[in-house]
Amino acid sequence: MARPRKFDEERVIHAVRDEFWDKGYAATSLEDLLRVSGLGKGSLYGAFGDKHTLFLRVLREYDDANLLTLRANLESAARGIDLVRAFVLGPVADPSGAAARRGCLLANSNAELATTTPEVAAEARRSYDAITVILTEALERARHEGDLAPDADPADTARAVLVAQLGLTALGRTGMDTDSLSAAARSVLARLLPPRTR
Amino acid sequence: MARPRKFDEERVIHAVRDEFWDKGYAATSLEDLLRVSGLGKGSLYGAFGDKHTLFLRVLREYDDANLLTLRANLESAARGIDLVRAFVLGPVADPSGAAARRGCLLANSNAELATTTPEVAAEARRSYDAITVILTEALERARHEGDLAPDADPADTARAVLVAQLGLTALGRTGMDTDSLSAAARSVLARLLPPRTR
Repeated sequence: MARPRKFDEERVIHAVRDEFWDKGYAATSLEDLLRVSGLGKGSLYGAFGDKHTLFLRVLREYDDANLLTLRANLESAARGIDLVRAFVLGPVADPSGAAARRGCLLANSNAELATTTPEVAAEARRSYDAITVILTEALERARHEGDLAPDADPADTARAVLVAQLGLTALGRTGMDTDSLSAAARSVLARLLPPRTR
Repeated sequence: MARPRKFDEERVIHAVRDEFWDKGYAATSLEDLLRVSGLGKGSLYGAFGDKHTLFLRVLREYDDANLLTLRANLESAARGIDLVRAFVLGPVADPSGAAARRGCLLANSNAELATTTPEVAAEARRSYDAITVILTEALERARHEGDLAPDADPADTARAVLVAQLGLTALGRTGMDTDSLSAAARSVLARLLPPRTR
């Protein structure tokens, strides 16, 4: 008979996620995980499995939450193009630059682990494929709304948009000053999604 | 009095670099470094300092070599635009996809370590700034040669080009199939550097 958990799973997942995000996967020790979760080893491993299993769950939940947000933002966007622009500019949205320096947990993890941990690379491919599907839908809508040229290919444009966002994420992670990062974002956005004069 | 080294420093640096590149910084143990270098701890630390110091030297030499190659490619390029296109397409130049999956040691390291190791983020900023200078020079030449529109800003274009290359590097690191990665590269290149009809 399953006993009710004596702790809040979501709180633990978030605390552990932040530790992995700040330190990287390999540099996060079991002691770190116990400290931030406030759990003993038996409770942590009993509830979530070992470090590897826990990390993959954290990463999957992080990606799923981001995909849900992106989908919801598309549903609520006044125009399809607004979602796409906001997606590209995501890495520069925080004026303090802290979010840019922290980067994306998925991008950081894939860069660190893709060679040694195939599950992480597979999770990155899954997530980027799903983002491309949402962006393509947004760009189809943008074309219908007159914000994308009639002869532009939404799927092809979506691929370029994803590349730009990943590049800005990588550049922001260097701690580049926010003015220069914003200039880079405007520069790439102007070339990918030039304003239409109708 | 300094004794002559009993080993080839360049061979050791390359062996250690490949280990860091494949495993990531934190996951590379002292035992790994001794194994791939063929040295004892005293010899390795005596010649290169501790793991942290050794890694920063490896990263710096890697970046310097890449910058020298980029500069030499600019000098030898038939046209300035050729250098810029080749730079963007670098992440898809290996038809086997192995180089794309391996990614860039600097990009991988910055993504893993920027929060905890400020020297790595500083090295990434230094390297990306230097790349932007070379790309700007190449694009000034391209404008002079009629391959970039007369009203295009070379420095602004260089920033967008760097973002695209970093994005393709991140996407290639996921192990995405080479056809899809090439499509993404063509898509972003066509928008950043459309062919000119003169």
